Amino acid sequence: MTPTAAPWAPGAPGTLHDPDTPFAVVDAARVRRNADRLARRAEQLGVTLRPHVKTAKSLDVARLLDGGTPGPVTVSTLAEAEAFADAGYTDITYAVGIEPRKLPRVRALLDRGVTLRVLLDSPEQAALVAAEARAASRPVPALVEIDCDGHRGGLRSDAPDLVPVGRTLHEAGCLDGVLTHAGESYYATTPEARVAAARNERDAAVAAAGALRAAGLPAHTVSVGSTPTAHAADDLSGVTELRAGNYVFFDLVMAGLGVCDLDDLALSVVVTVIGHRPERGWIMTDGGWMAMSRDRGTAAQRVDQGYGLVTDLTGRPLPGLLMTAASQEHGTLTTRDTTPLPALPLGTRLRVLPNHACATAAQHRGYHVVEGGDPALRGHWARIDGW
Amino acid sequence: MTPTAAPWAPGAPGTLHDPDTPFAVVDAARVRRNADRLARRAEQLGVTLRPHVKTAKSLDVARLLDGGTPGPVTVSTLAEAEAFADAGYTDITYAVGIEPRKLPRVRALLDRGVTLRVLLDSPEQAALVAAEARAASRPVPALVEIDCDGHRGGLRSDAPDLVPVGRTLHEAGCLDGVLTHAGESYYATTPEARVAAARNERDAAVAAAGALRAAGLPAHTVSVGSTPTAHAADDLSGVTELRAGNYVFFDLVMAGLGVCDLDDLALSVVVTVIGHRPERGWIMTDGGWMAMSRDRGTAAQRVDQGYGLVTDLTGRPLPGLLMTAASQEHGTLTTRDTTPLPALPLGTRLRVLPNHACATAAQHRGYHVVEGGDPALRGHWARIDGW
Repeated sequence: MTPTAAPWAPGAPGTLHDPDTPFAVVDAARVRRNADRLARRAEQLGVTLRPHVKTAKSLDVARLLDGGTPGPVTVSTLAEAEAFADAGYTDITYAVGIEPRKLPRVRALLDRGVTLRVLLDSPEQAALVAAEARAASRPVPALVEIDCDGHRGGLRSDAPDLVPVGRTLHEAGCLDGVLTHAGESYYATTPEARVAAARNERDAAVAAAGALRAAGLPAHTVSVGSTPTAHAADDLSGVTELRAGNYVFFDLVMAGLGVCDLDDLALSVVVTVIGHRPERGWIMTDGGWMAMSRDRGTAAQRVDQGYGLVTDLTGRPLPGLLMTAASQEHGTLTTRDTTPLPALPLGTRLRVLPNHACATAAQHRGYHVVEGGDPALRGHWARIDGW
Repeated sequence: MTPTAAPWAPGAPGTLHDPDTPFAVVDAARVRRNADRLARRAEQLGVTLRPHVKTAKSLDVARLLDGGTPGPVTVSTLAEAEAFADAGYTDITYAVGIEPRKLPRVRALLDRGVTLRVLLDSPEQAALVAAEARAASRPVPALVEIDCDGHRGGLRSDAPDLVPVGRTLHEAGCLDGVLTHAGESYYATTPEARVAAARNERDAAVAAAGALRAAGLPAHTVSVGSTPTAHAADDLSGVTELRAGNYVFFDLVMAGLGVCDLDDLALSVVVTVIGHRPERGWIMTDGGWMAMSRDRGTAAQRVDQGYGLVTDLTGRPLPGLLMTAASQEHGTLTTRDTTPLPALPLGTRLRVLPNHACATAAQHRGYHVVEGGDPALRGHWARIDGW
């Protein structure tokens, strides 16, 4: 094209050469493969898969997981819950601890016929939810959050508060079950450690459900999951459902753990070369932390991948090239060790694979879509925004 | 309020107790004070202030800087340039190196009567810009980026390419001057080091302008700036304009350097207590990295402030309380040293002061506005989004 051609507009036919950079791109073929892999695992393990939609925050990505028939989902915000409800999803778990001011939106979703489960881990929250249910004369389905590995919230499965919390909920018709998340599994660097984390996650949830049942309380839902444990679990006896989110895109942290291969990574950011500092070994791009996020999850891993590994537009890694520094709208590429800096002229477009797909995706309002190494754009998928 | 009250809607009268958390809040009184401080400095130094709008990305914030009369601005994206042009701004510098595919949007802005200056640091870019100007029979005003401290891009002021780049631009009527940014000043931890960084920044720009002029080329604009050097510069002889962006909000990194005080910080994020883990010394909130960003700029400073310092809703710091860990939608608060954990019941709202205002602001689509410690909401300011 000539420099004075009209700017390309989203939705117009085009390729990865057309949208202004930086932009996020999703390889739908890889998403389907990642989705199929975990769906098969869940089937083999005999549990329902309840994808966590917080990573992609996209109805289009969700359709690749459920084939267009709304299934059970997990959300991280009420904005996600509302957007999925608008699209016909009626079985939604809001997996962040509930607080008083969020109950009106929860109630509004319940009143629309959505089974929206809330999460809690304290007598105060249980009393709040029970009071709301009584005031509305309709239950608020609730899960008790169980702490399986000290990662953040939850009650230990042997906590003295567990049964009283369950009873408070049950007496208001709200107790649905228990939920746990092996957040520490993101640091489990061997397959054996992840199998152990998955067993521990299962054991904590099953023990908590058992404690409730032993007290004469119901525990229908026994929910576990994280992307590392979901791909490692060997036996989910006693568990009813499996949650995972990151697996739709995967990322360098997951590849660094060994949960996936580099060629499973479905999200990348297209950037353009805007300068060269050969005396410093730098190639400058227009993709900074605004496009990649500040996430540096691989810094804590055996191989630090900087702000991301660099590939060409077809997704083929450029040997040893990574993004090592970021300003708001500038990225710095350098090579590892003694790899010579490749010749990448001004205007060259590249893709950068992120540390953490959830964080990088959140820097964008949507995704351009490709299929495999073909640069043709197949569509644009919007993200759900805000809280 | 009762739990079943209707959700509060943006724009409705209310206080910091009303919008659903997490949300970003700006103290307009502090923005005005920060703006006045740098405006007075620029006046005393005899230079034009050209605010970098990349931090707030808000026309409302810009109006606090220019009093409603569009003045010169710096932008980090063409989306900012277009939004400011739509609002009547006609003197805009796009301070990221230009690449071929961005020229159509540059040309469209020039054709609207906006003086949009582009930035470049290579013969390839100069040739590109000159060719575009000749093809359109209208110049593209351009600044040569000067590297004053090895931070990222730019030509050294003694680089052999400087005069040829200037000449290529000048022969197409495009050469406007030079621009530099003391990016390394973000690591200048003493007032003396920042004064030295400001002198070095000035010297590099003035030397480059001198080299162009010595070759018979024009250098009208001699542009310098960063928030640390803008507040330290003691003599800007030879400089025509000063740029800074972060200063409208400031943040913990700037306070850690000593560029501002804690009570100058104008941006914070309101979060809600959703749980307690007293046995671990944790208070859990609904503000994770999605609300704060992954930026941990203070980790490299003398005092690591975690993901942010915690205040009450009026902005008064809670002694020793900081956010030390973040999941996507969970924040963990702990106290420093032996400070006892404060009693903050479920539902308590707090404000978290960010490491890096530019990055935290970017996690939000807009700002609720307050004046000082008064929790009444005075408005909602939208952010400019995307690229």
